[in-house]
Amino acid sequence: MKALTGLALIAYALASPAEISAQTTRYVRYEHQGNTSYGILDGDTIRQLNGAPTQGGSPTGAVVSRSAVRLLAPVTPGKVIAIGFNYKSHLDGREPPSEPGVFIKLPSSIIGPGENIVFPPGASNVHYEGELVVVIGRTAHRISPEQAPGYIFGVTAGNDVSERDWQASDLQWFRAKASDTFGPVGPVLVTGLDYENLLLSTRLNGETVQEQRTSDLLFGVHRIVSHVSQFVTLEPGDIIYTGTPGATRAMKPGDVVEVEIEGVGTLSNTIANH
Amino acid sequence: MKALTGLALIAYALASPAEISAQTTRYVRYEHQGNTSYGILDGDTIRQLNGAPTQGGSPTGAVVSRSAVRLLAPVTPGKVIAIGFNYKSHLDGREPPSEPGVFIKLPSSIIGPGENIVFPPGASNVHYEGELVVVIGRTAHRISPEQAPGYIFGVTAGNDVSERDWQASDLQWFRAKASDTFGPVGPVLVTGLDYENLLLSTRLNGETVQEQRTSDLLFGVHRIVSHVSQFVTLEPGDIIYTGTPGATRAMKPGDVVEVEIEGVGTLSNTIANH
Repeated sequence: MKALTGLALIAYALASPAEISAQTTRYVRYEHQGNTSYGILDGDTIRQLNGAPTQGGSPTGAVVSRSAVRLLAPVTPGKVIAIGFNYKSHLDGREPPSEPGVFIKLPSSIIGPGENIVFPPGASNVHYEGELVVVIGRTAHRISPEQAPGYIFGVTAGNDVSERDWQASDLQWFRAKASDTFGPVGPVLVTGLDYENLLLSTRLNGETVQEQRTSDLLFGVHRIVSHVSQFVTLEPGDIIYTGTPGATRAMKPGDVVEVEIEGVGTLSNTIANH
Repeated sequence: MKALTGLALIAYALASPAEISAQTTRYVRYEHQGNTSYGILDGDTIRQLNGAPTQGGSPTGAVVSRSAVRLLAPVTPGKVIAIGFNYKSHLDGREPPSEPGVFIKLPSSIIGPGENIVFPPGASNVHYEGELVVVIGRTAHRISPEQAPGYIFGVTAGNDVSERDWQASDLQWFRAKASDTFGPVGPVLVTGLDYENLLLSTRLNGETVQEQRTSDLLFGVHRIVSHVSQFVTLEPGDIIYTGTPGATRAMKPGDVVEVEIEGVGTLSNTIANH
């Protein structure tokens, strides 16, 4: 099993881009006996890495059972970028934007699967936004859309949690989008998926409330990464929320919100009061 | 000299808040013979620290001459927060805001003294904004304005460089405020100043173009730090640009912009094309 894994890793490293996209690797970050590690999830087993996969972490040889650990956010980004109004179904009568509508969330907003989304003081109109999240793999400075695939490490699921009243009233989207816990991501970071055509769905207390394919993005992943990189240098581990489809609803404490992406799995979080 | 320094540090650690404010310490970050360090600037001498002062860095015993090093941005923040419309003189007919108008810049926008502010592709209307910048010293989560002084490490000077056309046209202030090089800070991080009443001035090619005291801030430093901390947990080394006074003008490649703050010194940067 171990030997096969080593061969698979060598094959991955040597493969052409077309071959790489035919296979996937599922990375996790986890807490085990008080220690935090990155690892590769393979069925019920996690093979520990000696660092973040976006930083070239490689297997230590240690293996733990999935059931023995608590999964954390699979990334700890230095920058959290997001795109607004990027599905036709979310425009609600607005004109389609001529360029990606970029805004900024914060690393301190990031939480992992199973963690609570906490209402900040005064929040009352907090909505889910299920999204495909892109994870950067190489320093990207003014790259073209055609170059973008070489700078993308993989994808995960994300919830761009948004306080709609603050979004409408405030000078800029700060607390509306970047409050602590407003950035759930996970459960896994996956490489090798065809991220330009994955089914994205969101469930609120079990009811499907968003469902769309990422092929419906107005600005696709490569265009987004290229656009952002014209102005801001992207680094390995930085993430970009790509936009949410359809309409959204307010959540209340006790609600369970799930974002599922084909090939990634389900990111589940519960709403809590501050 | 060394012994006196040690005694001074012990005196600082033991001093009451009122006594602390009576003395200042000037921290720098610098490159020397290819290595980057933090240090304490004392006249023409820099005493090396073994880590960032906001992380408890302490003297290594090594000393270098100021003239032998290149000064860098004195902080490497995890988060860069900023406040808009926070001097009456900058409102330009707008109503004073009822709460601090918060927005987000990016760590990747930070540059130090002497580095170039680079026009991103397509930028044409890039303005200076001289500002007092607050540096956080302790993890701050939902603190009151009265508690804020205990969470502030010190202050530096900053230039909240802004592309006005993008600020007007874009969905949010992303590239307008957070483009690479749009966050000059420095030259030193100073503790012990009365940051609520310092003279701030900006010069463009030697001409004074902004001049106001920080006592004219609409929301003072303590209120700002308290407000932000209600929503976003602040960490040591995080910084907050507190707002700019008066009117601003477009800069062009080759221009030299200087932000001077009483007790901090002058942050000088040159404009360059991309």
